[in-house]
Amino acid sequence: MIVMKEGATPDQIRAVVNRVESVGARAHLSEGEIHTVVGAIGDREQVANLDLEGSPGVDHLVPITRPYKLASMQFRHERRTVIDIDGRKIGGNHFATIAGPCTVESRDQLLDAAHTVKEAGAQLLRGGAYKPRTSPYSFQGLGEDGLRLLAEAKEVTGMPIVTELMDVRDLDAVLEVADVIQLGARNMQNYTLLTEVGRAGRPVLLKRGLSATLDELLMSAEYILKEGNTDVMLCERGIRTFETGYRFTLDLMAVPVLKELTHLPIIVDPSHAAGRRDLVPALSMAAAAAGADGVVVEVHPDPEKAICDGPQQLRSEDFASYLRQMEQVAEIAGKELASRV
Amino acid sequence: MIVMKEGATPDQIRAVVNRVESVGARAHLSEGEIHTVVGAIGDREQVANLDLEGSPGVDHLVPITRPYKLASMQFRHERRTVIDIDGRKIGGNHFATIAGPCTVESRDQLLDAAHTVKEAGAQLLRGGAYKPRTSPYSFQGLGEDGLRLLAEAKEVTGMPIVTELMDVRDLDAVLEVADVIQLGARNMQNYTLLTEVGRAGRPVLLKRGLSATLDELLMSAEYILKEGNTDVMLCERGIRTFETGYRFTLDLMAVPVLKELTHLPIIVDPSHAAGRRDLVPALSMAAAAAGADGVVVEVHPDPEKAICDGPQQLRSEDFASYLRQMEQVAEIAGKELASRV
Amino acid sequence: MIVMKEGATPDQIRAVVNRVESVGARAHLSEGEIHTVVGAIGDREQVANLDLEGSPGVDHLVPITRPYKLASMQFRHERRTVIDIDGRKIGGNHFATIAGPCTVESRDQLLDAAHTVKEAGAQLLRGGAYKPRTSPYSFQGLGEDGLRLLAEAKEVTGMPIVTELMDVRDLDAVLEVADVIQLGARNMQNYTLLTEVGRAGRPVLLKRGLSATLDELLMSAEYILKEGNTDVMLCERGIRTFETGYRFTLDLMAVPVLKELTHLPIIVDPSHAAGRRDLVPALSMAAAAAGADGVVVEVHPDPEKAICDGPQQLRSEDFASYLRQMEQVAEIAGKELASRV
Amino acid sequence: MIVMKEGATPDQIRAVVNRVESVGARAHLSEGEIHTVVGAIGDREQVANLDLEGSPGVDHLVPITRPYKLASMQFRHERRTVIDIDGRKIGGNHFATIAGPCTVESRDQLLDAAHTVKEAGAQLLRGGAYKPRTSPYSFQGLGEDGLRLLAEAKEVTGMPIVTELMDVRDLDAVLEVADVIQLGARNMQNYTLLTEVGRAGRPVLLKRGLSATLDELLMSAEYILKEGNTDVMLCERGIRTFETGYRFTLDLMAVPVLKELTHLPIIVDPSHAAGRRDLVPALSMAAAAAGADGVVVEVHPDPEKAICDGPQQLRSEDFASYLRQMEQVAEIAGKELASRV
Repeated sequence: MIVMKEGATPDQIRAVVNRVESVGARAHLSEGEIHTVVGAIGDREQVANLDLEGSPGVDHLVPITRPYKLASMQFRHERRTVIDIDGRKIGGNHFATIAGPCTVESRDQLLDAAHTVKEAGAQLLRGGAYKPRTSPYSFQGLGEDGLRLLAEAKEVTGMPIVTELMDVRDLDAVLEVADVIQLGARNMQNYTLLTEVGRAGRPVLLKRGLSATLDELLMSAEYILKEGNTDVMLCERGIRTFETGYRFTLDLMAVPVLKELTHLPIIVDPSHAAGRRDLVPALSMAAAAAGADGVVVEVHPDPEKAICDGPQQLRSEDFASYLRQMEQVAEIAGKELASRV
Repeated sequence: MIVMKEGATPDQIRAVVNRVESVGARAHLSEGEIHTVVGAIGDREQVANLDLEGSPGVDHLVPITRPYKLASMQFRHERRTVIDIDGRKIGGNHFATIAGPCTVESRDQLLDAAHTVKEAGAQLLRGGAYKPRTSPYSFQGLGEDGLRLLAEAKEVTGMPIVTELMDVRDLDAVLEVADVIQLGARNMQNYTLLTEVGRAGRPVLLKRGLSATLDELLMSAEYILKEGNTDVMLCERGIRTFETGYRFTLDLMAVPVLKELTHLPIIVDPSHAAGRRDLVPALSMAAAAAGADGVVVEVHPDPEKAICDGPQQLRSEDFASYLRQMEQVAEIAGKELASRV
Repeated sequence: MIVMKEGATPDQIRAVVNRVESVGARAHLSEGEIHTVVGAIGDREQVANLDLEGSPGVDHLVPITRPYKLASMQFRHERRTVIDIDGRKIGGNHFATIAGPCTVESRDQLLDAAHTVKEAGAQLLRGGAYKPRTSPYSFQGLGEDGLRLLAEAKEVTGMPIVTELMDVRDLDAVLEVADVIQLGARNMQNYTLLTEVGRAGRPVLLKRGLSATLDELLMSAEYILKEGNTDVMLCERGIRTFETGYRFTLDLMAVPVLKELTHLPIIVDPSHAAGRRDLVPALSMAAAAAGADGVVVEVHPDPEKAICDGPQQLRSEDFASYLRQMEQVAEIAGKELASRV
Repeated sequence: MIVMKEGATPDQIRAVVNRVESVGARAHLSEGEIHTVVGAIGDREQVANLDLEGSPGVDHLVPITRPYKLASMQFRHERRTVIDIDGRKIGGNHFATIAGPCTVESRDQLLDAAHTVKEAGAQLLRGGAYKPRTSPYSFQGLGEDGLRLLAEAKEVTGMPIVTELMDVRDLDAVLEVADVIQLGARNMQNYTLLTEVGRAGRPVLLKRGLSATLDELLMSAEYILKEGNTDVMLCERGIRTFETGYRFTLDLMAVPVLKELTHLPIIVDPSHAAGRRDLVPALSMAAAAAGADGVVVEVHPDPEKAICDGPQQLRSEDFASYLRQMEQVAEIAGKELASRV
């Protein structure tokens, strides 16, 4: 929809109509008391590429159709995507917990955490080998050594692995061990990475950028889907707001709204949003209550000794009861629990 | 704490120490490798009033103690405030639902909604007689006629009334009918209103401003508490962020954080945050899961005919099942349900 | 414009059309490939009051016309409002500086500042008698004593006075001395105050709320204009964002955008946005360069002794050269300087 | 500074002191009336890595020293970095204009724009060969063909080239033509790219992320500086706020604040912030008035035919007078003009 300015001349309106028609779209005029509105009916991208904003007599543009296609609820005719990762299901009426340490630090630390989360009933094991850090002076992860430890944890526990990819040149190494490739919030619009991960065909956990709108998150998912990879989970992990009382503001409203817009599973990461262990249980339960398809949560056998993000990691001994309480809420919200299926 | 600039001179440091001591506080020096830090130990307000920020050699100030006293958890020695409104308890381990139409429109509409919410088990009846509206051309509420209808609904149903006060000159009229006086988000820092409501001594539902930090919300509560009125409920109702996918972003992280900072009950308003009925159930359950002490929610017998905010009001026929599901979650989160006490 | 959902039924579309026509508006259908759009042509408020959002088959609403009328550029046929305050002009091609202390503290302080700003060439004198403070424990202003000192400063210097009104009950007292009534950011949506100040007919300096959109600012101006008071200046004073490096984020983009939307003069307050004296000159020059019609700036003879906001007040001795530099920039931006007229 | 909770036990305080000392830092105790504060004096990173937040008895941490070193004003002893690009100076008292089309579209378009901006007096030529786009369906740039055209424009006009790098695998190709490598806002925290560009040693134009704090921007610069590349320009290009009246909110307050924090040159991009040509002149003048060291601005010989971002590109015929007016303001703000040196 192209909204013309008050007082736009017939010539200006005609010029807009001509440009709309020049890309094969139909133009449909609607004359209001103040504004004339030109509806452009045809291919969204082609009309958008006309960049009519700023043309003589044009006040502003109002896009009517959503910019994503493959990610939209309509594309799958209202059927939700259920991702099956070695028998663990995420999406639809399945709720899944992805748990493990923030960073892979050592063999003992990782295996200890892996056993804890497996026994408590988590479905997938997470752990970072490559860590995006704000400071170049901070620990950047164990890299390939970390990947090797993850491979060992997978062999020992049988749990599928979720781990982050930061550099496209590490893709092959990550594919050797990852059952799910995580793309971090700061890489949500790293289009190179999105495209390559799309081509790799492995399930993806795509985190929402700190100030990304839901439309932008879905457009980033579209980059992956467009390459033929349909196994994309979206992850809300806190957005940036004016509030300084906590690290990020967990946007749980995104959960029901995304579930309306897209067929893809929605995961919530309460650990990074809070930055503080004591908030994680309340936020996890709230995520489950809001309808999330799962959480990704950090657990460490000895958080005081963690190399990175210790304060936000749950203690191993608290994990089982935490999981039970969250699953109770997920059931009220309509989920079957994978752990009991 | 006054952080001195790198390279601050001994004279500049001495001048800061002298000013701190001039208001009867003690100064305590800590010399780091880069910065010297002057700790000011004494009355927070008096030191703050020195406005040392910008003094020669001063880099910045870091307040260590919280600015509020009466609202703080420490003031009540970790005991939570439980407000008793004609037998309905809010706070501590009590969960309460405040429900009713956005605006009082007519006798039939109000009584119909009142019966619905009472029968379903809500504790308090809400309804607006004075409505703050962005546009001077919008319906501004029935005013005193609305108050009279609320008085009738109270008499008929026995439910305590929650209604908004906008103008200090209407205080006496509102006090005639309101069991709880609501102060809206746009009036959160209307200090005149806060002080007068503090003096009136009636329980208050204080809504968080659209871009108010938790500290500011608590300082506004402090205005009321300072006048001797201890019955203050704080209400999260959505904040303003960059996200345009919904009206406001409901900040449920505020719930566990406020419960750590203050002894006052925390209420959540999912209706105004969402602006859309279909999001209200998921957000209400999430609020209960996050540990809220109650919700304030809009219900209308015929939302399509509502004069104001129809799209966000729950339908009467859906209210009872909505309430049951939310209460189930509140129980898992540790609440006894008032409706069963 | 009412955008129907993909797959909306003919019955749902007909129902929307009927409701639009029920308030006397015309409905105009535009059928796209995915969405049908219903244009509602008629009175904006009446259609808005239908609250069609949430009706069966409705996806979302897109307002086409702006919600304000009297404040709009079109209402004055592109002629800018020039406010004349005792011979000092603000708006159009006139640039004006409003200067003085944050708070009236004493006779000496006020008169000293008044002489400084007058001699340097400022047009109006500002000073607060009533101070909105976040904390109930902070100094709240001298009140009526402050007003009396302002009256004296006006008599001695001949400068028109700008001072803030916080409580509608103080209106008469403020009208005795104020040539311009200031409404603070936290009162931008205090509709009681807006209406009464509109009725009083005195020029108004209306500050933008910390998280108010430009549309909301203009709607608040509309409350005043609607009562017949046409002398309204809008003031940008910093908004709330995620950035913690400064107190508020001065939104200078608001200046050229507001000048396109409205005929009212646009003033910038660099002092409150920055909270630090050293940023004030650069921000003031930037405001003038962006096309502002004036600035309101704080000046104090001895900022270290100021009771409130000392760090952000310019020193008297720096004021004249500050003013010259800013005025040079205003001239390049197209202003005639009031001080030379 | 580690702020202990009210009521922290001596054991808890001792434990914190021990952990601080375990990494070779000194601990310095300051006992206030409510809180005990432990100052940690030593290596910032090592103390930060202790992750004391969340330890028993710890309320919160307050970092005193800034996290960046090489980017800080102190590191260069208050001397500003002046970058010399083939004789064009940026930084210190030099103001530079970087101009050219958003995207390289064709030989004619690029050469036409290049001649325009050269003749008007711009110092560097910008043009994108690789374009980061929100939508995978949008034009992604001419890629290597675009680089070849830029090389030709450089040969013909003698102007140094600024162009964006998105994918680390394109580094060598970009280095063949770019005199300045641009890193886009969405890649501000692409640590792979930052490190490789740091190693490449070519001058860098680093754009601030949409919701990046100034500290984060400086930390990203630190990644580049740490590799030995000292020629980094920082670029403010609009941040994300609640305001929907414009595409982004240009944060001109960042200019004077960054100039206090860092010795690196500060550039402003008014085109991307505004998204609209008509706002560009006012914002550019405001940037110069605020003390910016230059602007990067989009110019197109025929914006209506631009493939991307046409509405925000200045018309060639308006560029010379635009540049003159901006340079006048830069001179008042204290700059010598490179075009006249």
